[in-house]
Amino acid sequence: MLKVAVIGCGYWGTHVLRNFNNSPLWELAWMSDTDETQIAKARKNYPKAKTTKDYQDILNDEDIDAVAIATPVDSHFQIAKDTLLAGKHVWVEKPLTSTLAEAEELARIAKEKNLLLNVDHTFIYTPAVQKIKEIIKSGELGDVLYFDSVRINLGLFQHDINVIWDLAPHDLSILAYCTNKKAVSVNATGSCVIEYSGKKIENLAYVTINFEDESIAHFHVNWLSPVKIRKIIIGGSKKMLVFDDMENSEKIKLYDAGVSVTEKEDIYESLVQYRLGDMSSPALSNKEALAWEVEHFAESIKSGKATLTDENMGVEVVRILEAANKSLLENGKLIQL
Amino acid sequence: MLKVAVIGCGYWGTHVLRNFNNSPLWELAWMSDTDETQIAKARKNYPKAKTTKDYQDILNDEDIDAVAIATPVDSHFQIAKDTLLAGKHVWVEKPLTSTLAEAEELARIAKEKNLLLNVDHTFIYTPAVQKIKEIIKSGELGDVLYFDSVRINLGLFQHDINVIWDLAPHDLSILAYCTNKKAVSVNATGSCVIEYSGKKIENLAYVTINFEDESIAHFHVNWLSPVKIRKIIIGGSKKMLVFDDMENSEKIKLYDAGVSVTEKEDIYESLVQYRLGDMSSPALSNKEALAWEVEHFAESIKSGKATLTDENMGVEVVRILEAANKSLLENGKLIQL
Amino acid sequence: MLKVAVIGCGYWGTHVLRNFNNSPLWELAWMSDTDETQIAKARKNYPKAKTTKDYQDILNDEDIDAVAIATPVDSHFQIAKDTLLAGKHVWVEKPLTSTLAEAEELARIAKEKNLLLNVDHTFIYTPAVQKIKEIIKSGELGDVLYFDSVRINLGLFQHDINVIWDLAPHDLSILAYCTNKKAVSVNATGSCVIEYSGKKIENLAYVTINFEDESIAHFHVNWLSPVKIRKIIIGGSKKMLVFDDMENSEKIKLYDAGVSVTEKEDIYESLVQYRLGDMSSPALSNKEALAWEVEHFAESIKSGKATLTDENMGVEVVRILEAANKSLLENGKLIQL
Amino acid sequence: MLKVAVIGCGYWGTHVLRNFNNSPLWELAWMSDTDETQIAKARKNYPKAKTTKDYQDILNDEDIDAVAIATPVDSHFQIAKDTLLAGKHVWVEKPLTSTLAEAEELARIAKEKNLLLNVDHTFIYTPAVQKIKEIIKSGELGDVLYFDSVRINLGLFQHDINVIWDLAPHDLSILAYCTNKKAVSVNATGSCVIEYSGKKIENLAYVTINFEDESIAHFHVNWLSPVKIRKIIIGGSKKMLVFDDMENSEKIKLYDAGVSVTEKEDIYESLVQYRLGDMSSPALSNKEALAWEVEHFAESIKSGKATLTDENMGVEVVRILEAANKSLLENGKLIQL
Repeated sequence: MLKVAVIGCGYWGTHVLRNFNNSPLWELAWMSDTDETQIAKARKNYPKAKTTKDYQDILNDEDIDAVAIATPVDSHFQIAKDTLLAGKHVWVEKPLTSTLAEAEELARIAKEKNLLLNVDHTFIYTPAVQKIKEIIKSGELGDVLYFDSVRINLGLFQHDINVIWDLAPHDLSILAYCTNKKAVSVNATGSCVIEYSGKKIENLAYVTINFEDESIAHFHVNWLSPVKIRKIIIGGSKKMLVFDDMENSEKIKLYDAGVSVTEKEDIYESLVQYRLGDMSSPALSNKEALAWEVEHFAESIKSGKATLTDENMGVEVVRILEAANKSLLENGKLIQL
Repeated sequence: MLKVAVIGCGYWGTHVLRNFNNSPLWELAWMSDTDETQIAKARKNYPKAKTTKDYQDILNDEDIDAVAIATPVDSHFQIAKDTLLAGKHVWVEKPLTSTLAEAEELARIAKEKNLLLNVDHTFIYTPAVQKIKEIIKSGELGDVLYFDSVRINLGLFQHDINVIWDLAPHDLSILAYCTNKKAVSVNATGSCVIEYSGKKIENLAYVTINFEDESIAHFHVNWLSPVKIRKIIIGGSKKMLVFDDMENSEKIKLYDAGVSVTEKEDIYESLVQYRLGDMSSPALSNKEALAWEVEHFAESIKSGKATLTDENMGVEVVRILEAANKSLLENGKLIQL
Repeated sequence: MLKVAVIGCGYWGTHVLRNFNNSPLWELAWMSDTDETQIAKARKNYPKAKTTKDYQDILNDEDIDAVAIATPVDSHFQIAKDTLLAGKHVWVEKPLTSTLAEAEELARIAKEKNLLLNVDHTFIYTPAVQKIKEIIKSGELGDVLYFDSVRINLGLFQHDINVIWDLAPHDLSILAYCTNKKAVSVNATGSCVIEYSGKKIENLAYVTINFEDESIAHFHVNWLSPVKIRKIIIGGSKKMLVFDDMENSEKIKLYDAGVSVTEKEDIYESLVQYRLGDMSSPALSNKEALAWEVEHFAESIKSGKATLTDENMGVEVVRILEAANKSLLENGKLIQL
Repeated sequence: MLKVAVIGCGYWGTHVLRNFNNSPLWELAWMSDTDETQIAKARKNYPKAKTTKDYQDILNDEDIDAVAIATPVDSHFQIAKDTLLAGKHVWVEKPLTSTLAEAEELARIAKEKNLLLNVDHTFIYTPAVQKIKEIIKSGELGDVLYFDSVRINLGLFQHDINVIWDLAPHDLSILAYCTNKKAVSVNATGSCVIEYSGKKIENLAYVTINFEDESIAHFHVNWLSPVKIRKIIIGGSKKMLVFDDMENSEKIKLYDAGVSVTEKEDIYESLVQYRLGDMSSPALSNKEALAWEVEHFAESIKSGKATLTDENMGVEVVRILEAANKSLLENGKLIQL
């Protein structure tokens, strides 16, 4: 059984704690937080694990195989770097770091030290995203022409990162995992329509990603929508796919919609028409994403192979986030990647 | 009874013909088309109206009060100009013209000649848009913070105009009518992911409009979506509104969603939270938009007052379309209006 | 070209008139109504057809091949009988008659005279019902275990017939056409929760139909629902089908849901579990039902074959309606057919 | 702090255990099950509580204030009776017992001994049902004309009780709680379309309940539906309410739909028409039902007042279940209550 320590026992940390604790492959050995209250709560639920306010205690423990970092984004770099230098595998919440330079440095260290650096892009481990990857890989969609995502709801306002850094990592990881497209440039627009805590933090934003071919991706991320929408449309040259994560069942629908040329009698109408055919919706398993990711992390450590959400994905996501943020500050200007 | 001539008897022209013919305020006197087949069809349905291939015959008829132009966009300018110079009121399909310069010239002529120049932005006459205008005007939403529209489906590909010129006029007219915001700049991205007829005509696009205050509008227009979505979200400082035109009933939903400050025990969560309250959905009348517009056009001619969709709206819509197109060609660059 | 007369030019009559008039196989020769206003309206739309208040004028016209009867239900019997005795084919609105005895007499006369007696169960001619029939016939569903229909909305209250006679004919015809089950008995409950016009006419009702095997059908019909629901669920031993007529697309969904035996660790849970697999939704044609029925009626007259909705279906529907009504009056008592 | 014992640690028992354990008002003192495996699992989660296979150990413990019974239905009577005779308050899963006679005997004993007998009709404690009760009580709906519930999905087959005993208790308790109507008779139809375990246990059923006035209730319960529906429509003389428990938000919609008399020009149309007005959807709290019920049970014990789901509701539900079952066996015959 591998031994893990969890640093950061806040909102998402509780999910990480629970899943490592429930796994037969892991022993939850340490828990750390800078806040005494969080430590107290964690201790009540997992009385067998040791606790500390100073994560150096964990790094000094030779028995620890891996450390899971669920702290605010701007602390990821230092803690992850210290952990890797202490020779331990890292599981870190998304996004990997606050800057591309930091992300690249962590990736370099992980490779040098031959350690795993798993970024917790949990969505990749959902049955829905696994199915989408499988469908695209099989060629059923044909070429991916566009990827459009809407991820909006009435959410908590983050006070350290804007809505792009908060929500877009989900879409960026899904995009990277499901398609093998090379992003070449980014545009982003958005606004801070509600100001709070004295800072200008964008509450809603629109990001366009341009690829080498003419294909395109677009994300709408928004903390201020009265309706919760989690919908991705992937247009392919053969079929089209809609992933609606708010559906209880039928989350994925696959449409047989191909181009066909039609002669119309009315000269004002076009000669090209899309044809809509049968739709199908594959059954999905009930596997919990985080539970599988925890298991996969353990197996990857044992086999020495990278996880599905390794440092390369983590770096790529931060690269686009940083460029999108730059574009946002420069009024939507095209930023080369 | 006023006398009207209809030029252009194609797809949309048949709706215009039917509504002028059904109206007790109008006599359908002339019908014109460059295509004999269209004329023959029109004659079968409206045997009493005269027909011609040359619209000059209509302009020469002193009895004609108004001319409705339902031809392809790039012919609007010449026909509308000739009609105004012949001293007749004009009803023209949207968008008003292909260029801002042309739109402004038509507007100038109409004002000089004291003639009505009604642009058929039909949506303005729907019970739903009338209700939205009423709600915003009453102050119930508070300040409009953002306007987000998705207008996508698997549609006919136009071969003369791209998807922005085809679909965005709907949203631009609704935006202009319902809010009194002054647009200052535009960004647009998009792509021609399906090529046809040897030309590069964008099939999908994203347009951001920036206003003087920090508020923002965004349109997603797309001919290539397997699902048909016609959804506008308007975020206000007091309430938020969703207009879903695909709903049979409950097209408009109004959410009582105001900002509230909450103290959370977990330091990783924000202090600012939006609160979602009651929702209400107003009943809408069954009035047909085009029938009302035809009636309103007649009454405006009699009273000498501008229509709800006059040349000012027509020019403003073309101004933004032209700027959006420019931004599209310059990789999303911010274009000042 | 066959010649048709239409008797009854009210609400549904206008649809019948339009479709016969549009058909290249029919000449609309006569129109009749007891109400002058209706005749005047019909004459305006179809100036070439002759009109009369007395349908005997039509029966005396030797050129007439068929008569379409779109009058109130209790007048169907006499008009249809007179028409058949005059040697003309009959198209009659549903339900065929007000009593089983009348329905059987009409059926007998039609057979004796070798004339077609088409009952306008329009639903049978919709692409959706044609597809359902095809799916069931192919064996894809397996045995039909149950048929459950909900057909409710806030509708006009009929003042001559109750909600069962008004709405259940749709479901009864679909049931009869799509399955070949032999109904053996009926139960019905319901109530007149809103009284009007001094009569007790049930506004909502529930009908159960029992078949020879253990399978069962149930209809919920209701004029008083704030939401419009038109949903039929057909449970099969292999697959299950949902027909939701309120959907714009995806009207039919086919679920791969078969029985499977599962061993559960918890003794309080059952050993039998249903498994839900993939779903698919076939594309449907856009053919208009009434247009096709009018064409099919003409072709059936020419070929001498029965229509899909002949007197046998008409009689079977009335048989069950009469029995359901009897059960309703006897507090839900089982009525043998 | 009150002391509780839980008998039956299976599927639903785990929820009961968790909620009593989490409550600051309760100490979870004992856990019992006839199955060693269940006891072992429970002990792992709640190591401080004592365990036993023989519930007499619990009844002999003078410190125990209340016993929660989460065993199969046919064991409820004996365990609950023993518990009451031992002088302890009872919480028992729904339905209260398998027969009306048993239910009435338990109610009598509870009253004699002045002990609480809470039947766990959890739905009563949901924010949605609390809101429905509040709306009806306020008179906003006017008189309740009908209550229609559909509660269907592809569920586990119970092997001891049929679908009416499994699912209808939810609707019966909601009906009883929200309206104060006196049921006078019952009809039920249904079928065992899938046989298993050698017994005939109905998988789908339809129950009609008749009230003293002309109003009516109807339940469709079904283990064999490919789609999960949990929808209750309550028609009132002033407004109508739809409760859709599958909605994430907007679970309750209230329609302003009143009767109005309309003169129609077409004689074939009725003179009475329902009018559909505005709709509103109240915000609901996030309170967890079972947590509140556990708290309410403790407070009721302290105050000596009955719970919202006391023996009277428990008896009434069983009375109708027994009558419905009788009707089912007698082919839908009306059974007086």
